[in-house]
Amino acid sequence: MSDPVPTDVLADAIGATLEGEVRTATGLAPIPAPRADRIVVCPDDDALATTLAADGAEALAAVVVDASADVPPGAPPVLRHPAPRLALARLTRRFDPTPVPAPGIDPTARVAPDADVAADATVGPGAILGAGARVGAGARIGAHAVVADGCTVGPASVLHPHAVLYPGTHVGARTTVHAGAVLGADGFGYAAGPGGPEKIHHLGGVEVGDDVEIGAGTCIDRGTLEATRIGDGTKIDNLCQIGHNVRIGRVCLIAGTCAIGGSSELGDGVVLGGGAALRDHVRVGDGAQVAARAGVSKDVPAGEAWGGTPAVPMRAWARERYLVGRLEAIWAFVRAARRADGDA
Amino acid sequence: MSDPVPTDVLADAIGATLEGEVRTATGLAPIPAPRADRIVVCPDDDALATTLAADGAEALAAVVVDASADVPPGAPPVLRHPAPRLALARLTRRFDPTPVPAPGIDPTARVAPDADVAADATVGPGAILGAGARVGAGARIGAHAVVADGCTVGPASVLHPHAVLYPGTHVGARTTVHAGAVLGADGFGYAAGPGGPEKIHHLGGVEVGDDVEIGAGTCIDRGTLEATRIGDGTKIDNLCQIGHNVRIGRVCLIAGTCAIGGSSELGDGVVLGGGAALRDHVRVGDGAQVAARAGVSKDVPAGEAWGGTPAVPMRAWARERYLVGRLEAIWAFVRAARRADGDA
Amino acid sequence: MSDPVPTDVLADAIGATLEGEVRTATGLAPIPAPRADRIVVCPDDDALATTLAADGAEALAAVVVDASADVPPGAPPVLRHPAPRLALARLTRRFDPTPVPAPGIDPTARVAPDADVAADATVGPGAILGAGARVGAGARIGAHAVVADGCTVGPASVLHPHAVLYPGTHVGARTTVHAGAVLGADGFGYAAGPGGPEKIHHLGGVEVGDDVEIGAGTCIDRGTLEATRIGDGTKIDNLCQIGHNVRIGRVCLIAGTCAIGGSSELGDGVVLGGGAALRDHVRVGDGAQVAARAGVSKDVPAGEAWGGTPAVPMRAWARERYLVGRLEAIWAFVRAARRADGDA
Repeated sequence: MSDPVPTDVLADAIGATLEGEVRTATGLAPIPAPRADRIVVCPDDDALATTLAADGAEALAAVVVDASADVPPGAPPVLRHPAPRLALARLTRRFDPTPVPAPGIDPTARVAPDADVAADATVGPGAILGAGARVGAGARIGAHAVVADGCTVGPASVLHPHAVLYPGTHVGARTTVHAGAVLGADGFGYAAGPGGPEKIHHLGGVEVGDDVEIGAGTCIDRGTLEATRIGDGTKIDNLCQIGHNVRIGRVCLIAGTCAIGGSSELGDGVVLGGGAALRDHVRVGDGAQVAARAGVSKDVPAGEAWGGTPAVPMRAWARERYLVGRLEAIWAFVRAARRADGDA
Repeated sequence: MSDPVPTDVLADAIGATLEGEVRTATGLAPIPAPRADRIVVCPDDDALATTLAADGAEALAAVVVDASADVPPGAPPVLRHPAPRLALARLTRRFDPTPVPAPGIDPTARVAPDADVAADATVGPGAILGAGARVGAGARIGAHAVVADGCTVGPASVLHPHAVLYPGTHVGARTTVHAGAVLGADGFGYAAGPGGPEKIHHLGGVEVGDDVEIGAGTCIDRGTLEATRIGDGTKIDNLCQIGHNVRIGRVCLIAGTCAIGGSSELGDGVVLGGGAALRDHVRVGDGAQVAARAGVSKDVPAGEAWGGTPAVPMRAWARERYLVGRLEAIWAFVRAARRADGDA
Repeated sequence: MSDPVPTDVLADAIGATLEGEVRTATGLAPIPAPRADRIVVCPDDDALATTLAADGAEALAAVVVDASADVPPGAPPVLRHPAPRLALARLTRRFDPTPVPAPGIDPTARVAPDADVAADATVGPGAILGAGARVGAGARIGAHAVVADGCTVGPASVLHPHAVLYPGTHVGARTTVHAGAVLGADGFGYAAGPGGPEKIHHLGGVEVGDDVEIGAGTCIDRGTLEATRIGDGTKIDNLCQIGHNVRIGRVCLIAGTCAIGGSSELGDGVVLGGGAALRDHVRVGDGAQVAARAGVSKDVPAGEAWGGTPAVPMRAWARERYLVGRLEAIWAFVRAARRADGDA
C-alpha cells in the first residue's frame, strides 16, 4: 500500500469531518474485512453495522459514514462525509499505489521527426507517434499504443497499452483511453454499386473532449464528413461500439457493451445502462436514462427514463411486463368462457 | 483536403452528369454547412432544400442530386447521378486525404527469413511476419500487426495496426482488417472429461475472401477441422463475434456487435442488423435480412426478413408487438367480465 | 498434418478400444469428407451412416463411435469410446500441428531488470515484462503482449499476441489468454462530485486461476479494493465483459459476448449461453444454467436453468412464450365478445 497518512490530514483532503482521535491510515479495506490501520467506507447503516461487528474493527484507522449515521460508542474514529461514495473516490485516489512512470521517450518508441511531444510526457516502449502528432504536457502514451499521423493527445491524458488512434483523432486533456480501444476506424458505410458494395470513405475524424474515460476494447468510428464527437466529462465503459457521426454530450455515463448507431446523438448527462443499444439517427435528450439492455429505436425526450426493446418509457415498460404477467389469468378466463360457450 | 479537381472531371469519374458551369471542387461538405468550392450530396428533396437555403450555398462547386430532383434556377451547378449515395462513396474516395505509406519494410518489423513479401508491399513498425507468411503486391501491414506462421495476406489488402492473424489465416485480395481484429483464435469447444473440461484443439484456420472488410475488435474464430470462411465482398462491422466453423457467403453486410454461433451459415447477400445474434448450427438463406438485435434460433429461409427474440418473420413479429399492445384492452375486458360474473 | 500414428497407439492414448485392424492415421477429417488415412469422429448413428456412405470411407484409418453404435460389416476399423466428443478433444490435441516455439527471450522483448522469467519460458518479439513481473516454467508470452509491473503468469500458461495484463494481474498455471484480451483495466466507477464525476480508483487487481481460457477481446476489470477473481478451470469465450469485483467459481463455461455486471458472483459449474448478461450484484448459484441472451436481474438459485429478459426459470419463460403465442386467439375472443356486447 501507499505511505501512511494521519486521518486528520485525510479528513481535510477528502472534505470529511474527523470525529474521534487521529490515527494513521495505511489504506482502505473492504466492508466485511476490517484490518488494522485501514479505513472502511460505509455507505449505509447496514454496512456500518457489518463493519463494526467484524473482528478487528476496533483497530481500524477510521470508518467513513454519512451525515445521518449513528455511530455507537466504542467504535473506531469516524470520518463523516456528506457523500460516502465521493469519499471513497477520493480515498482510492489517495491510496492508489500505481507509480507514475518517469517522463521521457522510450528508445524503442517510434516518433516521427515532426511529432511534437511535451518534455514531461511519457512515451512507452514500442509506442508509435505519426507525422505531426502532438502529445501534451504530462501525457502518457502506453506501450505499443499508436498515435497516427495528425493526432493530438491533450495534457495529462493517458493512453494505456495498445490503444490505437487512427489519423485525425483528437483527444482532449485529462482523458484516459484504455487498452485495446480503437478510435477513428472507418464507419460502416457502403453504397450499392454495379459490381458490389462501394465503400464510403470516412473523411471526418474523432474528437474526444477533456476528462473523458474510454474503456478497454471500445471502438469509436470516425465520421463521414465531420468528426464523431465525445463531450467533456463523458465516461464510456468497455467494449462499447460508437458508430460514425455520433455526437455524445457532456458528462454522459455509458456502461459496458453499449452500442450507438451511426449519426445518433446523446445530449448532456445521459446515462445508458449496460448493453443498451441505439439504432442510427436517434436522439436521446439531456439527462435521459436508458435502462440496461434497452433497444432504443426512436427519440428519447430529455429527462425521461426508458427501457425495453423496442424501448418505451419505463412506466409503459413496467406496465407491459405487468400485463404479460396477467396472461395466465387471461388465458384461463378465455378458455373457460369458450368452454361455457361450447366453443372449445 | 485534397487537390482541387474540376467538376466536369469529377462528373466523369463518378458517373454523373454535370448541369451548369464547371467549377473547381476542393472536397465535400456536410448537408447543413455548405462551404465555398465544396460539393454537397443531397440524397433527397429535403436535403436539397436545406442545402440551398443555407448561407454560402451559392459558392458550392456543385450539388449532387438524383435523376428526379427539381433544382431551382440560381442554384449552384448540379451533378446529377442515379444514386446519390453511390456518388457519395465515389466522391469520398476521390477526396480521401489519407496518404498511402511508402512501400517497404520498416526496420523494426520482424520478418521471418522465409516470409515472402511483395516488393511494393508496406510492412509497418513492429509488425511481425511469421515463418512462411506471404504478403501480396501492394498490401499494407500496419504497425504491430501480427501475421503468424503460414498466413497469407492477398494483394492490395490492408491490415490496420494491431490486427492479429493466428497461424493458418488466409486473407484474400483488397480486403481490409481494422485495428484490434483477431482472426483465427481458438473456437470455444470443450469435452467433459474425468478431470474437467478437455479442450478441443482447432486445426482449421480462417479463410477470408476478396474485397472483405472486417471491423475493429471483431473476432473470427478458427474452425475445428475445416476453415471458418468469409465470402468475397462481405463487410463485417466492429466488435462482432464469428464462431468456429461458420460459413458466410458473398456480399453479406453484418452490422456492429453481431454474434454468430458456431457452425452457422449465411448465404449470399445476407444482411444482419446491429447486435443481431445467431445461435449455433442455424442457416440464414441467400438474401435474407435479420433485424437489429434479433435472436435467431432457427433457420431463416432465403429472401425473408426476420426479427425479434426468438426471431420470427417480420410480419409475425410486428403482429406480436401489435397484440402485446392490445393487452391493456384485453385485461380491462377480462376484469370487467369477471366482475360481471361475480368472480372478482 | 502431424506425424502418422498407428491406431492401436491412438486407442491407448485416447482411452478407446480398437475393433479391427491396426492402420496408420495421419489426422482427422470432417464428417462429410472422409480421406485416406484419416479418422472421422461420429458422435451418433446419423454421423456414422453419413460417413460410411461417402466415397473413400473404406480408406479411413478408423471411425470413432460410442459404446452403443452398431457398425456394419465392411466398415473401416472402429475406435470405440464412451464419449466421442472427448475422443475428439484428445485426437485434436494429438494432431494439433501448431509448433511450440523454442524457449527463450526474443531480443526485441522488453524485460525489466528485476522481472523473473523461467529459463524455459518463451517471450516473443516486442513483449513487455514490467518491474517484478514473474513468468513461470514453460509459459509463453506472445508477440507484443504486455505483462505489467508486478504481474505473474503461471507455469505453462500462454498469452497470445497483444494480450494485456495491467499491473497487479495474476494468472495461474496452464491458463490461456487470447489475443487482444485485457485483464485489469479500471472498473467503471465514479462518484458524483461538485465538479462532475470523480473517478473511483481501482486498487484491487485480477486473479485468474489454473486451467482457465480467456477469449480474444475479452475484458476483465480489476476490483475496487479486492481482486476480481476467475476460478480454476473456467472457460470464457471472446468479447465478454467481466466487471469489477466479479467472482467466478470453478469450471464455469461462459460463451461469447456475455457481460457480467460489477460485484456479481457465479458459483462453480455455471454455464452462461452466448450473449447472456447479468446486472451488477446478482449471484448465480452452483451448476445453474443461463440461456443465451438472457438478461439476469436477480439471483439464480443453484442448479436451475433460467432464460429470457428479465430472466426467469426456463419453464416460466417457455410458458410466457406459449401464452404470448395465444394472444391471437385471445384477441379474437375479446373482439367477438365485445361485438356481441355491442361494445365494438
